[in-house]
Amino acid sequence: MSLPPDHPSRSFTANSYLRACRLQPVDRVPVWFQRQAGRSLPEYRQVRGDGSILRSIEDASLTAEITMQPVRRYGVDAAILFSDIVVPVNAVGFKIDVVPGVGPTAEQPFRSKEDLNRLRPLEPDIDTPYVLDAVRLLVEQLEVPLIGFAGAPFTVASYLIEGQPSRNHARTKSLMHSDPNLWHELMTRLSDISISSMRSQVLAGASAVQLFDSWAGALQPVDYEEHVLPHSRRVFEELADLEVPRAHFGVGTAEILSLMSEAGADVVGADWRVPIDEVRRRVGSKTAVQGNLDPAVCLADWPVVAEQTRRVLKAAGGKPGHIFNLGHGVLPETNPAILEQVVELVHTEGLNPDLLAT
Amino acid sequence: MSLPPDHPSRSFTANSYLRACRLQPVDRVPVWFQRQAGRSLPEYRQVRGDGSILRSIEDASLTAEITMQPVRRYGVDAAILFSDIVVPVNAVGFKIDVVPGVGPTAEQPFRSKEDLNRLRPLEPDIDTPYVLDAVRLLVEQLEVPLIGFAGAPFTVASYLIEGQPSRNHARTKSLMHSDPNLWHELMTRLSDISISSMRSQVLAGASAVQLFDSWAGALQPVDYEEHVLPHSRRVFEELADLEVPRAHFGVGTAEILSLMSEAGADVVGADWRVPIDEVRRRVGSKTAVQGNLDPAVCLADWPVVAEQTRRVLKAAGGKPGHIFNLGHGVLPETNPAILEQVVELVHTEGLNPDLLAT
Repeated sequence: MSLPPDHPSRSFTANSYLRACRLQPVDRVPVWFQRQAGRSLPEYRQVRGDGSILRSIEDASLTAEITMQPVRRYGVDAAILFSDIVVPVNAVGFKIDVVPGVGPTAEQPFRSKEDLNRLRPLEPDIDTPYVLDAVRLLVEQLEVPLIGFAGAPFTVASYLIEGQPSRNHARTKSLMHSDPNLWHELMTRLSDISISSMRSQVLAGASAVQLFDSWAGALQPVDYEEHVLPHSRRVFEELADLEVPRAHFGVGTAEILSLMSEAGADVVGADWRVPIDEVRRRVGSKTAVQGNLDPAVCLADWPVVAEQTRRVLKAAGGKPGHIFNLGHGVLPETNPAILEQVVELVHTEGLNPDLLAT
Repeated sequence: MSLPPDHPSRSFTANSYLRACRLQPVDRVPVWFQRQAGRSLPEYRQVRGDGSILRSIEDASLTAEITMQPVRRYGVDAAILFSDIVVPVNAVGFKIDVVPGVGPTAEQPFRSKEDLNRLRPLEPDIDTPYVLDAVRLLVEQLEVPLIGFAGAPFTVASYLIEGQPSRNHARTKSLMHSDPNLWHELMTRLSDISISSMRSQVLAGASAVQLFDSWAGALQPVDYEEHVLPHSRRVFEELADLEVPRAHFGVGTAEILSLMSEAGADVVGADWRVPIDEVRRRVGSKTAVQGNLDPAVCLADWPVVAEQTRRVLKAAGGKPGHIFNLGHGVLPETNPAILEQVVELVHTEGLNPDLLAT
């Protein structure tokens, strides 16, 4: 299907984020920050309260306000919906919450075939109407594109199987290796849910989507290729007809970047471990790249942050198809004034021939 | 200095682990497992109790027994001393404990220049006599070489600064970037402590050493090169005169493997994320490689484990200078019977031309 003529994505023809996603020339390097809406902002802490994010986002106007905050403050080139990757699976009844200070936590983790029954298809209008209400509220107000998102099937599966954030993803890998049929069924259901969620966000007005496979880098390439890539590829294929840019992100993905690019996204984001020119080499010339300043660098004083921001810009070389971002989410202890300066620097110096020549 | 003529390392001329470390031909591929002595073994759980490892290892005969257990059970080609990387810093008075189920925990983390006073030089004979007693007990009994070890300055610094295990090492990186002079002083002191500890273990009878820089892979290459590599290089240089093999290990090190090899170790170990033939390419032909089966694979049934073990062996190609190991420590939930089978397979098939030709 094609989006209607009045879809918001059609109004941002000059927006540098959308243009960079499509490898088109830009008049400045676009920048946004993963987890730009969040605890680093005093205005966020003021409105958000202490409870689970899953309760907060049921209030669409609060979601819209939180999503807008970093756009107002930083002048970034895109907004990203304030939400969480476990929202859809919780909404269909899996029962997983986001415990403040801990992360996604399931009292009854995924263990056997019977647990598939807790993962029926998502009906976005019925299961997550507040998400779509927030998208509609936002696109009325925003002067930049809104990025919708979902968790990738592997990373969501990891939370469901481990029951909590995990360092080694041992149970997840164990299920993958021990029961590949069940693994495949689980990944298929989670892919369906991610597809439905992202489609609904775009139809409600989002101008791009990002699939977060944050923990895919825990896998060796051969396991990623066999057990994850086919599912992520299907997610992107099922969104292709919408004709909005599709981005794909994970951390620690050095050795799977080229495989990730085979999943078919328009943009691949990477963490700080691989210099961005090398990221580009690995994903190929038909894919835009996003990143990749180490978020921990932003805890330092400005001269250090400036130097490392310039290093990323120089490595990107001012070529089309680079979206500046952090290599992972903004750390809660980050000083927002530093991120304001990063945006200013990226915008003013990102295409500066003198910088790029040094 | 040279080791005395009766040093244990001189008696293992036919040992495949020591030979592989030196890139010499072997009659079978050597194998040992990181964290082979530990909770995966019922005989370990029986003797160990529930308290901090720092208390347990004060009993040298218990340490020796625990170190011997996997050698007896698996027939591995090397033993590694049962200890912890925070033992020396705790012994000089920093006050850091290993909390069961949590990891290294410091009530008063490293915060400022004054904290350097809590890191005086290590006097192994006085500060950790039980470690050396255990080494001496072990070399009397062992029929394979004993590997001594220490934490690398970066990884130990991370524990001291974060105060507990950390996912993003934000405070550590923040100190590194914000106060490079203090960082350098801290790294120098920690390097001195690691050097003293490993020297003393070798002089007491250990036949090899391994420097664990488990979390160095959290750094971007440019930060590793500037803030970590010079210190790790000094550690290896200061041990060179002992003429025992020196190994170097971290996880998530894909992009820093070639830099790590510049630190000068004889062996570089890597996790499962980079195929072992690619590890070898990155560290260069003068350095042996160690690894790199994903420990989580060992939770699967034997056919899966066998297939992936063979994959590592094939990638290593039977060339001199490969020590089979896991890509990180044995997971506590591992079935020891599986590791027994891994050892058997590595020993019987590792140099099999039919396997290597497939």
